[in-house]
Amino acid sequence: MNESELHRIDRSVKRWLHTSREFILKKMEESLNVSEKTGRKDLVTNVDKENEKFLISKIRTFAPDSQILGEEGFGDQIRQTKGWVWVVDPIDGTMNFVKQRDHFAIMIALYIDGQGVLGYIYDVIGDQLLSGGPDLGVFNNDEVLAAPANVSLRDGLICVSGPMVMHNYHNFQTVVETSSGLRIYGSAGIEMIHVLKGETVAYVSYLKPWDFGAGKILAESLGLAVTTVDGKPLDMLSSDFVMVATVQAQQDILPIIGSNV
Amino acid sequence: MNESELHRIDRSVKRWLHTSREFILKKMEESLNVSEKTGRKDLVTNVDKENEKFLISKIRTFAPDSQILGEEGFGDQIRQTKGWVWVVDPIDGTMNFVKQRDHFAIMIALYIDGQGVLGYIYDVIGDQLLSGGPDLGVFNNDEVLAAPANVSLRDGLICVSGPMVMHNYHNFQTVVETSSGLRIYGSAGIEMIHVLKGETVAYVSYLKPWDFGAGKILAESLGLAVTTVDGKPLDMLSSDFVMVATVQAQQDILPIIGSNV
Repeated sequence: MNESELHRIDRSVKRWLHTSREFILKKMEESLNVSEKTGRKDLVTNVDKENEKFLISKIRTFAPDSQILGEEGFGDQIRQTKGWVWVVDPIDGTMNFVKQRDHFAIMIALYIDGQGVLGYIYDVIGDQLLSGGPDLGVFNNDEVLAAPANVSLRDGLICVSGPMVMHNYHNFQTVVETSSGLRIYGSAGIEMIHVLKGETVAYVSYLKPWDFGAGKILAESLGLAVTTVDGKPLDMLSSDFVMVATVQAQQDILPIIGSNV
Repeated sequence: MNESELHRIDRSVKRWLHTSREFILKKMEESLNVSEKTGRKDLVTNVDKENEKFLISKIRTFAPDSQILGEEGFGDQIRQTKGWVWVVDPIDGTMNFVKQRDHFAIMIALYIDGQGVLGYIYDVIGDQLLSGGPDLGVFNNDEVLAAPANVSLRDGLICVSGPMVMHNYHNFQTVVETSSGLRIYGSAGIEMIHVLKGETVAYVSYLKPWDFGAGKILAESLGLAVTTVDGKPLDMLSSDFVMVATVQAQQDILPIIGSNV
C-alpha cells in the first residue's frame, strides 16, 4: 500500500476515534447500564456496545470488503486472515471505566493479509492517542514517538496481570522480584502505552485478539518484542498469554520462566 | 486555629508546591543524579534532595518554631508531637520519577499537637493537587472533593503493594480475589489520590510517616478509615502497615485477614 493511501486511512480512523471519545465523554454524564459477561470481573456497558456499533458502521462504510472482529460481537465471525481485517475494542479496561471513570482506551487494529498495518490506542480521559504502524512510524498524538531504550528487566518496571502474579504462573514472582518493581493498571491498552513510551520494560497478561492487536502493531513498529509468554509467534485471531517487552527484557524473562530464548 | 489563619497557611503551602512543581519540571530536562538508599529498589535523586531543602527552607521562614520531618533527612529529629509538626515528602514515588518521568507526587502534612490539620498531595505531571483538612474540607485543585461512596470490597478495586500480594501477607491474596481487581501504581501519593476520589476502595502498604501523613489527613476528612492493617490507630511518627479504605471495605477486609473489626 502506498503512503498516501495509508495516510488517508489514518486520517479517517483518527476522525472516528475523536468522535468516539466525544461520545464516551458525553455518555459518562449519564448513568451506565452495566452487565456481566463471563463473570463479575468481566463487565460490559451500553457504552461499550454503542461505541462498537459506531466504529463498525464507520469501517463498513469506509471499506465495505473488510472483515471486522469486535470485542462485543457486532462484527463478523472471522476464520481466515486474507484481505483487510479490522480488530476493534470499543472500551478496553471496562472495569476501570465503570469503577474509576478513567484509565481505559479505545483500540483499533488494521491487518492486511495477516500483516499488521495500523494500530491505535486512545487513552480517552488522558486524551492521548498512540497511532501508526511499520510504514507510518509511531506517534503520540501529533509527535513522533521514539523507540524506547532497550532496557533490561532488572533496570525496568514490569506490568504483569494480578492473577499471574498471585498464582506465580510460570515463575512470574521471580520475574517481578528481578525487575525494579510491579505495576498494574488494569487495561491492556493503558499498560501497552507504558511499554511503548519506555515507562515499563514489559507487559505480560492473558489477552484476547482485541486486547493485543493495536499494541502489537505499534510495539513491533518500535522494535519491541511481541510474542506468546514463551517467546513464540502470536496468532492474531487467538487468545493467549502475551508478552510485550524490550528485546533485552524478553531475553531476561524467558530463562526465568523456563523457556529457551 | 481560626479559619482565616488556616487559609493563610493553605495559600502559602500551595505557593511553595507550585514553585516546587516548576522546579521539578525544569530539572527533568536535565539528567538526573540517581543513587540507592537501602537498596536498588529504594532510590533518591538530586531533585528529591533539592526539593526537600527548598520546602524546608520555606517552612522555617514561614513558621520558625515548627519541627519538620523530611524523608531525605534535611529536617529535624522528632521525638514528640507537641506544637507544629510538618511532614515533607519531596518526591513520593521516586522509582516512578526515575523510570517513568510520571506518576509521582509532592506531599506535605501539617500536624498541630498531634492532630492532622492540613494535607497536600500534588500529582506533578497530572497537575492535580489534593489539599485540605478536617476544618477546610478537601479540594481537588480548586473544586470541592465530595466524600467517596461507602463502597464494599467486592464492588471496588484495591491497591495492595506488590510484596504483600506476592507473599500473601496476612491472607491478602484472598482480599484481592474478593475485590473487583488489583491495581498497583507505585506511589503512595498516587494510590491515595485514587482512594480519595473513590476510584479504588482501599490501599494497603507498608508506609513511612512521610508516605501516609498527608493522605491520612485528607482521607479522614472525607470519612475514610485510616488505620494500621489490623485496624488499630496509626502513630504519626512510626512506620507501619497502613490501610486507607472506605468504612465498608475496611469492615470487609479485617475478617479476611484474621483481625477483629
